[in-house]
Amino acid sequence: MSTPIRLAIIGAGSAQFSLGLVRDLCLTDSLRGSTICFMDIDQSRLEMVHELARRYAAELGAELRFEATMEREPALREADFVLNTALAGGHDQEEAERALLQEHGYYRGIHLADMVRQFDLMLGLARDMERLCPKAWLIQSSNPVFEGCTLVTRKTTTKVIGLCHGHYGYREIAHVLGLELKDVTFEAPGFNHCIWMTHFRYQGRDAYPLIDRWIEEKAQGYWRTWRPRYGQTQMSPAAIQMYQLYGLMPIGDASRALWAEVWWYHLDLAAKVRWWGPLGGFDSAEGWQLYLDDLARNVQQIREVASDPRRRVAEVFPPSKSDEQILPIIDALVNDHPGYFQVNVPNQGALQGVPDDVVVEVPAMIDGKGIRPLAVGRLPKRIMLGVMWPRLLEAERRLAAFLSGDRRDLMQLLLADHRTRTWEQAEEALDALLTMPGNEAMARYYAK
Amino acid sequence: MSTPIRLAIIGAGSAQFSLGLVRDLCLTDSLRGSTICFMDIDQSRLEMVHELARRYAAELGAELRFEATMEREPALREADFVLNTALAGGHDQEEAERALLQEHGYYRGIHLADMVRQFDLMLGLARDMERLCPKAWLIQSSNPVFEGCTLVTRKTTTKVIGLCHGHYGYREIAHVLGLELKDVTFEAPGFNHCIWMTHFRYQGRDAYPLIDRWIEEKAQGYWRTWRPRYGQTQMSPAAIQMYQLYGLMPIGDASRALWAEVWWYHLDLAAKVRWWGPLGGFDSAEGWQLYLDDLARNVQQIREVASDPRRRVAEVFPPSKSDEQILPIIDALVNDHPGYFQVNVPNQGALQGVPDDVVVEVPAMIDGKGIRPLAVGRLPKRIMLGVMWPRLLEAERRLAAFLSGDRRDLMQLLLADHRTRTWEQAEEALDALLTMPGNEAMARYYAK
Repeated sequence: MSTPIRLAIIGAGSAQFSLGLVRDLCLTDSLRGSTICFMDIDQSRLEMVHELARRYAAELGAELRFEATMEREPALREADFVLNTALAGGHDQEEAERALLQEHGYYRGIHLADMVRQFDLMLGLARDMERLCPKAWLIQSSNPVFEGCTLVTRKTTTKVIGLCHGHYGYREIAHVLGLELKDVTFEAPGFNHCIWMTHFRYQGRDAYPLIDRWIEEKAQGYWRTWRPRYGQTQMSPAAIQMYQLYGLMPIGDASRALWAEVWWYHLDLAAKVRWWGPLGGFDSAEGWQLYLDDLARNVQQIREVASDPRRRVAEVFPPSKSDEQILPIIDALVNDHPGYFQVNVPNQGALQGVPDDVVVEVPAMIDGKGIRPLAVGRLPKRIMLGVMWPRLLEAERRLAAFLSGDRRDLMQLLLADHRTRTWEQAEEALDALLTMPGNEAMARYYAK
Repeated sequence: MSTPIRLAIIGAGSAQFSLGLVRDLCLTDSLRGSTICFMDIDQSRLEMVHELARRYAAELGAELRFEATMEREPALREADFVLNTALAGGHDQEEAERALLQEHGYYRGIHLADMVRQFDLMLGLARDMERLCPKAWLIQSSNPVFEGCTLVTRKTTTKVIGLCHGHYGYREIAHVLGLELKDVTFEAPGFNHCIWMTHFRYQGRDAYPLIDRWIEEKAQGYWRTWRPRYGQTQMSPAAIQMYQLYGLMPIGDASRALWAEVWWYHLDLAAKVRWWGPLGGFDSAEGWQLYLDDLARNVQQIREVASDPRRRVAEVFPPSKSDEQILPIIDALVNDHPGYFQVNVPNQGALQGVPDDVVVEVPAMIDGKGIRPLAVGRLPKRIMLGVMWPRLLEAERRLAAFLSGDRRDLMQLLLADHRTRTWEQAEEALDALLTMPGNEAMARYYAK
């Protein structure tokens, strides 16, 4: 059985992402006959992706259709699924904001303007979907998944599901411990980028003692010689200290992307190096640049293939399925193929102690009947009070600041940052952010 | 009609407080025939209070009985009301802890050891009441009222009501604006020491515009010449900035006692002087010392009267009723005399958006049928996100740290403090606190 769908990709100009998805779709026989509509505001990137997708499907003999548009409306019309990967403003603007805020004492910046742009894009998209494809699922893969999905849930009737790769962090734990991945099971609920491993089993038995023994016997030696790439933060001193402080391992991005709650890892480069190894982790200037360079190198490779019709796309996208959940989830929903996934959906009681209208990251069974999160119970009190509540408070403040258009709400975000030393510092940073090129619309919105 | 009651005062050695209450009781005819049992662990202060109470009642011809005990059990037995004014450990220990933490970078200290002592005393007292006087009301007047009453509510069946004077701060606003107090009404719900004036009326009309005009036309001149005493923080630059930031006036202690949320007022003496005038407010070294000196001076006056049986107690306690709510509330309850009070009681929906098992400060109607808080609705979102949630989070962390006996929960409190610059600073401060004289029991508890 196969069910063709219409999938719109918003922000499809990311060739790496879009062609990865095309590859997976080519290899998913049960979605044969589907249509992907690529949408992006960057015409040249859009055309390249469109052209490569056609070539790639032809190479693999896959029965797929592709469209491309620079407008949202034709992309959304008739869509069954809308995948949002867009980064409003792009990396360049984000980097310029980071540099500017760093001059004001915020080492590596603080999410403010980028956040407002993303919320605006996400909410606008979800509202357009209400009108143009009210039955479609919005699959949100660009950040901030936590706040964005919560916003869409509260303000629209659009069904939203947020996806991320962070939960695969348990695999790095298994790898470092020398465990066979096929014999490992785990569970790690929480908020996106703030998930905590409540279960970790190897061959049916609790495997947390193996982590404890590794910490006691091997961690120091491991850290003495490790030269982690930016993504490898799972067994960092930071992750292990969080485990010791909170009682559960933070998984994936939780080991690096929490800022407000574990500020002492983020104060300066020296701190980052101490807690995430010589490179300073994913979010140091060097680590992040390496990530951006890798992205650029991939795009360059893809461009070279694009410019030479004699080369095969499969050179840069070998035809083997990724571990991306997007298509398996679509397959589960439309073909009633049951599967177990890690998703971000409105809580509705799955994670106790969190309001129902907050989007949580939890395991879920997905099939033709829909997405049913598993009731994961409670996280330990120390994690709730130390990380989850503060993270939720930060999310609520961000959403409030976005919705109100009131400059005081932006000030509140800056004042709550542990790096802020004086009221004036926050005022000046905010002034600088609102007067920099690219943020004119935001400045008008907050001048109300 | 008069109904004699048995009232136990725990921590009765504070002569100023106890004799003030005796004065009010002498002047409350409807409680004629009542018994006060003074309880304190300081024998000489206890005896002085006991003796002065007898003399004072005799002077005024009041029909009252007095007892004194150094044990809790005889004080509680048969009690109708138990008034807790005790400060476990006393001011000297508290000052020593402040000085020590200041050496570690926490200007004017941080509530940790004092908090644990107070919780221990409050919970122990409420548990003894469950056994010895299960129908009695516990009236909690020593701090922390917010956390203490919440703790007692959650962990015992003892009925608790917390009282404070902070809400009278609206009178200082009226005074500075030149309004006739009798024509002013107000409402200021929240948590104890974190209340926000939702209503302020003069002769029936909204009087907030009078505050706005004062800020525009008179505030600068007022601040140029003011020489506030420690208690006068209600119209300080800090209070007005909070009003401008959050949209409602903070009332009473809310204008000075919030630390975690408005850290920029508390960084150092210069900040305190800027925000609370030349003395630096209630909580600067100088302001607090003035308060302690005033306390000492009062005690000295009282001692002089005590040591000379020919002098009248009424010299230091002129027989006119205070605005203390304690006896009017008791009168309302036992004599069914309805009254409108500001109390701290379990929320049960009075303040929307706050869990039911949290004690809130709200207006209440009190009479023979009990204490009925008024439904005050919601506080504005900016106050909830900026102050109420963070304050509740701090309270929950303090209670968790008290109940767990886990050192990590104390670390979490220190790490959350905006003044903490490094993990090591927090560790060292905590080590110092736990090894200082007077904190041996606490050190054992957290060494578990």
